[in-house]
Amino acid sequence: MLQGNVMENDFHTLKGYELSESKKMTYAMEDYLEMICRISQLKGFARVGELSQALNVRPSSVTKIATKMRSLSLIEFEKYGYIVPTAEGMKKGKYLIYRHEVLHNFLCFVNNSANELEQVEKIEHFLDVKTVKNIDKLVLKCKKYQQG
Amino acid sequence: MLQGNVMENDFHTLKGYELSESKKMTYAMEDYLEMICRISQLKGFARVGELSQALNVRPSSVTKIATKMRSLSLIEFEKYGYIVPTAEGMKKGKYLIYRHEVLHNFLCFVNNSANELEQVEKIEHFLDVKTVKNIDKLVLKCKKYQQG
Repeated sequence: MLQGNVMENDFHTLKGYELSESKKMTYAMEDYLEMICRISQLKGFARVGELSQALNVRPSSVTKIATKMRSLSLIEFEKYGYIVPTAEGMKKGKYLIYRHEVLHNFLCFVNNSANELEQVEKIEHFLDVKTVKNIDKLVLKCKKYQQG
Repeated sequence: MLQGNVMENDFHTLKGYELSESKKMTYAMEDYLEMICRISQLKGFARVGELSQALNVRPSSVTKIATKMRSLSLIEFEKYGYIVPTAEGMKKGKYLIYRHEVLHNFLCFVNNSANELEQVEKIEHFLDVKTVKNIDKLVLKCKKYQQG
């Protein structure tokens, strides 16, 4: 359906989109905040070693990104210490967990499968709030329809 | 639903996934091949200047990536000349166009909108063949149901 206007130069490469965005929170920070909030919801705080293990990254990467996240007031953090989301960080983190679960439910529903973690983690950064909410509604509607 | 097993370290950052993949065709090449095939389907070949304009990139970037794509036998290309997909390149390009259109149809359906180009271009690289085909089926089914 887009074949008629391929020359209207609305297309960009993925790198082109990255370069044109000046988001304060990077995709990596989104991954970290989501995990910090998951762990904090379970036990009140997260530690560098836990994040390093849970996200498959080096402890030095956790320290580096956590320092940046502290400067954005998303978390409280002292080097080698506990990481605790701020109220603002937890609010954003809860949305990131919601977004993740909506997309995981959707892909499991679409593929009739139990685990779509990899694809979810790859696409979740790129879908906006409106789309996530509408996908949530669509899956609910489809499941209701299936049930009769 | 994933809260119970956040410590099982299946999660990765987006960068972690990129580093773990040794795909021959990069995301940028996918964008280029899709556009080369779109233009070639209309008029038999594409030129560097057209691709540069259509993808909002510098002509020097087109030349650089086209050279790599030639080495993967996806296109035939001489510097400053015509770019023509090989049979293998056109086969892959047709799938990329199909994938793009399935996801565009899906997001337009979900959001009840006419243009979701930006989100499609960001997520299309990350969804596998099975998921794309199943999303295609889901949209057809939902539209059929809506019609009565």
